[in-house]
Amino acid sequence: MVDPLRIEDLDRETIDQVMDAAGTFASEIIAPLNSVGDREGCSMPAEGVVKTPSGFKAAYDKYVEAGWPSVSCQPEHGGQGMPIVVNNALFEMLCGANMGWSAYPGMSNAAYTCLAANASPEQKKMYLPHIASGAWAGTMCLTEPHAGTDLGLLRTRALPQSDGTFSVTGTKIFISGGEQDLTDNIIHLVLARLPDAPPGVKGISLFIVPKFIVAVDASLGTRNAVTCGSIEHKMGIHGNATCTMNFDGATGWLLGEPNNGLASMFVMMNHARVIVGVNSIGLMEAAYQKALAYAKDRTQGRAPSAATRIGAADPIVAHADVRRMLLTQKAYIEGTRAFALWASQLIDLQHHSADPAERAQAAELLALATPIVKAFSSDLAIECISMAMQVYGGHGYICENLVEQHLRDARIIPLYEGANGIQAMDLLGRKVVTDGGQRLIAYLQMISAFADSQADAVGMQEISTALSDVVALAHRVTVEVSQRARNNADEVGSAAAPFLRLVGHVSLAWMWARMAAIGLANQESEDKIYASKVATARFYFQRLLPEVHGLVLAISAGSSCVMEPEVDWL
Amino acid sequence: MVDPLRIEDLDRETIDQVMDAAGTFASEIIAPLNSVGDREGCSMPAEGVVKTPSGFKAAYDKYVEAGWPSVSCQPEHGGQGMPIVVNNALFEMLCGANMGWSAYPGMSNAAYTCLAANASPEQKKMYLPHIASGAWAGTMCLTEPHAGTDLGLLRTRALPQSDGTFSVTGTKIFISGGEQDLTDNIIHLVLARLPDAPPGVKGISLFIVPKFIVAVDASLGTRNAVTCGSIEHKMGIHGNATCTMNFDGATGWLLGEPNNGLASMFVMMNHARVIVGVNSIGLMEAAYQKALAYAKDRTQGRAPSAATRIGAADPIVAHADVRRMLLTQKAYIEGTRAFALWASQLIDLQHHSADPAERAQAAELLALATPIVKAFSSDLAIECISMAMQVYGGHGYICENLVEQHLRDARIIPLYEGANGIQAMDLLGRKVVTDGGQRLIAYLQMISAFADSQADAVGMQEISTALSDVVALAHRVTVEVSQRARNNADEVGSAAAPFLRLVGHVSLAWMWARMAAIGLANQESEDKIYASKVATARFYFQRLLPEVHGLVLAISAGSSCVMEPEVDWL
Repeated sequence: MVDPLRIEDLDRETIDQVMDAAGTFASEIIAPLNSVGDREGCSMPAEGVVKTPSGFKAAYDKYVEAGWPSVSCQPEHGGQGMPIVVNNALFEMLCGANMGWSAYPGMSNAAYTCLAANASPEQKKMYLPHIASGAWAGTMCLTEPHAGTDLGLLRTRALPQSDGTFSVTGTKIFISGGEQDLTDNIIHLVLARLPDAPPGVKGISLFIVPKFIVAVDASLGTRNAVTCGSIEHKMGIHGNATCTMNFDGATGWLLGEPNNGLASMFVMMNHARVIVGVNSIGLMEAAYQKALAYAKDRTQGRAPSAATRIGAADPIVAHADVRRMLLTQKAYIEGTRAFALWASQLIDLQHHSADPAERAQAAELLALATPIVKAFSSDLAIECISMAMQVYGGHGYICENLVEQHLRDARIIPLYEGANGIQAMDLLGRKVVTDGGQRLIAYLQMISAFADSQADAVGMQEISTALSDVVALAHRVTVEVSQRARNNADEVGSAAAPFLRLVGHVSLAWMWARMAAIGLANQESEDKIYASKVATARFYFQRLLPEVHGLVLAISAGSSCVMEPEVDWL
Repeated sequence: MVDPLRIEDLDRETIDQVMDAAGTFASEIIAPLNSVGDREGCSMPAEGVVKTPSGFKAAYDKYVEAGWPSVSCQPEHGGQGMPIVVNNALFEMLCGANMGWSAYPGMSNAAYTCLAANASPEQKKMYLPHIASGAWAGTMCLTEPHAGTDLGLLRTRALPQSDGTFSVTGTKIFISGGEQDLTDNIIHLVLARLPDAPPGVKGISLFIVPKFIVAVDASLGTRNAVTCGSIEHKMGIHGNATCTMNFDGATGWLLGEPNNGLASMFVMMNHARVIVGVNSIGLMEAAYQKALAYAKDRTQGRAPSAATRIGAADPIVAHADVRRMLLTQKAYIEGTRAFALWASQLIDLQHHSADPAERAQAAELLALATPIVKAFSSDLAIECISMAMQVYGGHGYICENLVEQHLRDARIIPLYEGANGIQAMDLLGRKVVTDGGQRLIAYLQMISAFADSQADAVGMQEISTALSDVVALAHRVTVEVSQRARNNADEVGSAAAPFLRLVGHVSLAWMWARMAAIGLANQESEDKIYASKVATARFYFQRLLPEVHGLVLAISAGSSCVMEPEVDWL
């Protein structure tokens, strides 16, 4: 394993080593358990007890032993202090290999982030080293049966006790890893209301509720009154236990300020949204690798311009429509990956840059990038994995070819950590129209400046022109929607989804232009990656980016056709 | 049940009665078995024996008893002689209620069509009355492990025997209902090669291979040497047995002319393609009904312009982004349904019109419509069912809410009966560029004439202008691609998928313009369907149709960015 490092000590070679080791771990230890996890799923052999699929515990132990949980944890908690971008790239691989499994350490990672940002020094000392080591896991307990998107409706209560603790009572649903057999303890982070709390989202506080109460010497004490009542039967991620958690006067500790729980939780939610976006890229990649291998191997029909003719039929990778499907996946995978890693770097800059202006700018950009990484990547993941399945023809529908599981697993990502419609409202409603579009326009200007800088570079003219054009289109729409939203709040909800997709395309166009520029600058290289990047960029600009023209028209149509139909006309 | 009828005797009232009865049957008898079928799936309790899920046989018996298998079968075979459009509307409901179950009678229906078109009088007499009654089932056995899209590669052999029969040997995969416990006999229609057959698709013949050999008195004789070796584990349609069928010198009878098997089979395939498109509409409808009910019931958040304020939150149907999702589903469901039923009427006209010119025109239009009904409807079904799930938020991912099964079940439709990429090649390659686009241009001119006829109708101006514009766009692209394809065959494969989607949108725009015109003409009616149609048409034209602009640009980009990347750059 890598040695503990500080960000300033990192170099390219070290990161490459970590990535290679992550790839090996993901493909050799975790990936082989993917269909096992899907077939077996989780079970409850006794009341409150959750059994994970065969092999999950052994793999988790290896993960802990190798030090992976601590990659980007802080050295003072026993972490390796590597940047978030490394951690997120790790999670792309883990999730691509086995999403059901990787959601366990993923939740712990999220809980670590939340505790590191909000906990008192004593709380940090008590919990963080054990989460960083992987000995304990974490969860986030937000949703209740009647309160999902609208957390203001939540009813779980926290009553102050004479010893400074709180008695937490309520029911939480959809708790990933709420119970499992991988770790000695589970630290639940729970949203609940204090007795005197104001109604709605301003009356929500955050509590630490450990499964086993932790003594001062870090030994595990009493079993707390928090139990798993049942696990959900789901479309996918069968290997991950989705639990209904019953808190029956469980002992909790306040985390952060009273009535500030939603803000505290959102520190984690924002990081988690980037990570789940990254996860969806891992699943696209896994499906793409399988589809590509199949397309090279499977022979059917004669392609008009097949390079090689062996036997009675050509490999289907020679057929134009199959190439279209493969290139679409490749362009979206590599484009969203570049963008998600850029967003992950913004998290690092926001926390660690020595320059306050750079920190502030990173925070502004990250606010825009987060909903795009989450929603655009996961929407594209569903499209691309479905396309990978399509490359297989009927064989893609058969479980043993392993692609259909990726599609079922991936389908949760547009739904959780804030459904994609909520991401779109977050982008347009909270981050664009509130400042008349200024933050987004600054982002667009940054992209525009890049396009201008490339206008005269050899081979870049077509791409830089297309990039400038799409930025101008987005600029115009941003101003238009911001103005309309002032008079009609429904303009935001009506435009949000295509608007997010439009800004997503602008962002991918920027990434592909940057990759093309590097590819063209290295045209003489024998490494085929440069030619591949230039060719894929061209495909993206010519075949995928034009979608924006329909989006712009749909946005400009306004809200009347959305809002006017009466409910009983639907 | 309805009495046997000839098409000329049918009136609106009779058809409404049949449709009402079909709706009752589908919702009361078949729909309750949908999740049972998914959970239990099919099993093989003994070698060669397939057990369908609990209740499937009892429901099938009721289906037979009520006379549904014979709805559109010909009176001379004991059928009710109703038009195909009625049969297809029936199958939309059956499939929406329970796709796994309805694929059994669906295959029999397809086999009936193939036998009715190709069999000798003796063969018809021997098999058709029993398939029409539902006592026997039918299958189509095309695919082999190495031969799916490319049937020219198939290897199953048929050796002539001295008694005029053939000894059929080979392995077929993906045979829906290849074995089951619903019917007394199964009539397999099998593609195989005669010993002296030319290579490729011109050497394929079609054979009747019954599970039990039928005596002259229609009693069942010897068990034939055709057995189910295994059943597939699939993403969905668990209730339907997808069988590997082993033919070990099974006794078969030639159906139609030697070496003309593919053409004979395509009579059925073309009908089946329309039906599977219709099936996907049934699944969209089922998912939409659930999502709409949930959106009216679930309360979360405050909508800016909620009509009613009850309690702490508004029903999510009041939120603009949820309305966008619901209206998108509604516009695509009702648009594809109108188009698919129009295509089904073309089948009836093609067979039954007294006017030879009308028969010929119907055949021409049907050739264009078939790949669109199959591919565009099923692609939209995946998008719309996924959107229905999205309306539910996280609850959509949970099996008990029943939407996720629709998505898994529907995902087979873009893959089978010719994958959707093949449908796109069929449209652009076989039916457009071969005649320089003339057939499609005639279709566009018909739509254009309708747009012109509505230009001055009250309220229709915006819609008729938009319809004319999109027709003009499609016309231009059709000419362009047809010309380019003359010099470069890869232009067809590169453009096929977006081209089919473009023509699909033109077709839906036509349907929505027709529905809007009827809605506007009945504005004074108290029946809300008219206002609903006008509002949904407006939504379709303003929000969904603009997608065509991106498609046109992608098509016009040509094939170079698709074909130039080397395989090892992928």
